[in-house]
Amino acid sequence: MSRKIIVAAAQVGAVHKGAEKKETVERLIKLLHEAAEKKVQLVVYPEATLTTFFPRHFIEDQEELDKYFEHGEDITQSSDVKPLFEEAKALGIDVSIGYAERTPESTGYNTSVYYSASADKIISKYRKVHLPGRVEPFEDPNATNQLEKRYFKPGDLGFKAFRASGLVQDALKKSASTANSENTDGKGDPIMGMLICNDRRWPEAWRVYTLQGAEILMFGYNTGSHMSHLWGSANTMTPEEQEKEALFHSRLVQQANSYMNACFSISAARCGVDDGKYDLIAGSSIVSPEGQVLAEAKTKEDELVVAEIDLAECRKGKEKTFDYGRHRRIEAYSLITEQTGVVEPPLLD
Amino acid sequence: MSRKIIVAAAQVGAVHKGAEKKETVERLIKLLHEAAEKKVQLVVYPEATLTTFFPRHFIEDQEELDKYFEHGEDITQSSDVKPLFEEAKALGIDVSIGYAERTPESTGYNTSVYYSASADKIISKYRKVHLPGRVEPFEDPNATNQLEKRYFKPGDLGFKAFRASGLVQDALKKSASTANSENTDGKGDPIMGMLICNDRRWPEAWRVYTLQGAEILMFGYNTGSHMSHLWGSANTMTPEEQEKEALFHSRLVQQANSYMNACFSISAARCGVDDGKYDLIAGSSIVSPEGQVLAEAKTKEDELVVAEIDLAECRKGKEKTFDYGRHRRIEAYSLITEQTGVVEPPLLD
Repeated sequence: MSRKIIVAAAQVGAVHKGAEKKETVERLIKLLHEAAEKKVQLVVYPEATLTTFFPRHFIEDQEELDKYFEHGEDITQSSDVKPLFEEAKALGIDVSIGYAERTPESTGYNTSVYYSASADKIISKYRKVHLPGRVEPFEDPNATNQLEKRYFKPGDLGFKAFRASGLVQDALKKSASTANSENTDGKGDPIMGMLICNDRRWPEAWRVYTLQGAEILMFGYNTGSHMSHLWGSANTMTPEEQEKEALFHSRLVQQANSYMNACFSISAARCGVDDGKYDLIAGSSIVSPEGQVLAEAKTKEDELVVAEIDLAECRKGKEKTFDYGRHRRIEAYSLITEQTGVVEPPLLD
Repeated sequence: MSRKIIVAAAQVGAVHKGAEKKETVERLIKLLHEAAEKKVQLVVYPEATLTTFFPRHFIEDQEELDKYFEHGEDITQSSDVKPLFEEAKALGIDVSIGYAERTPESTGYNTSVYYSASADKIISKYRKVHLPGRVEPFEDPNATNQLEKRYFKPGDLGFKAFRASGLVQDALKKSASTANSENTDGKGDPIMGMLICNDRRWPEAWRVYTLQGAEILMFGYNTGSHMSHLWGSANTMTPEEQEKEALFHSRLVQQANSYMNACFSISAARCGVDDGKYDLIAGSSIVSPEGQVLAEAKTKEDELVVAEIDLAECRKGKEKTFDYGRHRRIEAYSLITEQTGVVEPPLLD
């Protein structure tokens, strides 16, 4: 009855402003080799993995800005990134990776793709729906910007769950100790979905995926450790307290949404200190459908976080407390899709 | 700019099967007196506070079953419960309390009301939307049932946020140290909502309230510590591990949903060991809009958990990360209200 696979979050440490994509991809491949040694079948890389997190900068020069984006139709054919997918194919490892995507219409998206080694192609693409930040830079030239709303459009592909073939069967081949007797569920291929960074804080995103039966959600993130400038003068926390709170929130939403959606989640941080001053939280982790942390990063550097997971463990939640068909009451939820912002009840006299 | 009020969760320990409502109400009044001494303005009592948690029993005798319900149109006029509301009025304390409601049409609901001391009446009623459990009892006569779906209908009042008058102003009167300079927000009366028990695990419920601007969500719960029979033979945890996990889940969803909805939450447990064998978790708590626990129960008995909260602290979340108007993308959420249960993607070949 078990459906075991071995998965990993590939945490990526500092990527400075001038870093060459080629060098960064070499780091990603090194993590992929470690994954192969550990019989990992799926590696999840962070959001916008290939460059520094450029939305923190106000970039007016279009040519400079364009360098942060991937421009081709198929990222597996991008000259800098191609070696990663070739290695993934050779090793038989599925890969999810985030990058900045420029379409032929010159639209920018914060994108993530899922590469299936058995299919040897991208089988799913996701474009970040919940873009944080602002369109306009802060007036204070020393403030750290968050300009995703300037450089990207909200994703136009929705939250589309997909099946990845070969993973559960591969477990059979690769490790006798994790053998699955049979796909007695009649659905051996896991149902998966991708989120990106800030999406993880929005329960709507998780729910749309698990309404399609998702068993694994994957996401990368670039999350600042110190964001006091975004909160105004009211914030009196020290940098250490701010980092602790940022990590707490990140972990809290991952654990709770995994539990409330009865799914595994794999999160991969771009972390460390970029350019000697932009500090990003780490905390990459693999969380169970009961909301428990199964494995987590110990560093703020390149690090592979590995766990063997049994997809059958989703069933306890999906068939009891969170059996949507028996318990959800959509007639009471209409505001969620009718109304974007807040409409308050009238003031009392 | 601050809008401070003092609130409390009134945790209620064991209530055995034969307990007289009158005696239970005396315990509730004792907690109310303690609240008054501590200048509390709002007390939140548990779910189905007035009796033992009867949905754990398969009751075939209608007369016996009816005793667990309140039958009048207005619970403030119910002879057993009236003294509680009289005392609340005398002390100037708002009260939220859960009970089993029987309507004139003989329908049962798991209900909660909000009594405003300044209005001296019930100003809001909520009927539990997410009923857990089953309609039919377990075949095993030793199993603990969960028959809410048998005894109650799903709530038909939706999640309707409301304003409670007098609370913020009362803070001004009662304590110079917590004085609010002025209601500079132009909305001094807090926006509130009620959930009941299992509702807290459903992010849809929280979201519908905070789409109406809710700043405080209140809920009571009766949550079993040991539910292994519900999970089948796969569960190998000890009773202690089960209680720890049940508490972990309860706290996790409260903290995460408070954070993701930028609201305070007040949770009150019916807890302890009913009839010497039915063990319920405690853990009543008050949680901030950042998801931090501000105060929590130390016992599994009658206990008042008190915190002073500043409603202005909701604004950080509501105006930045969770500014719905700027960040939500309802075009991507349609499955949430279109589809009750799961629709999986097709199987691969």
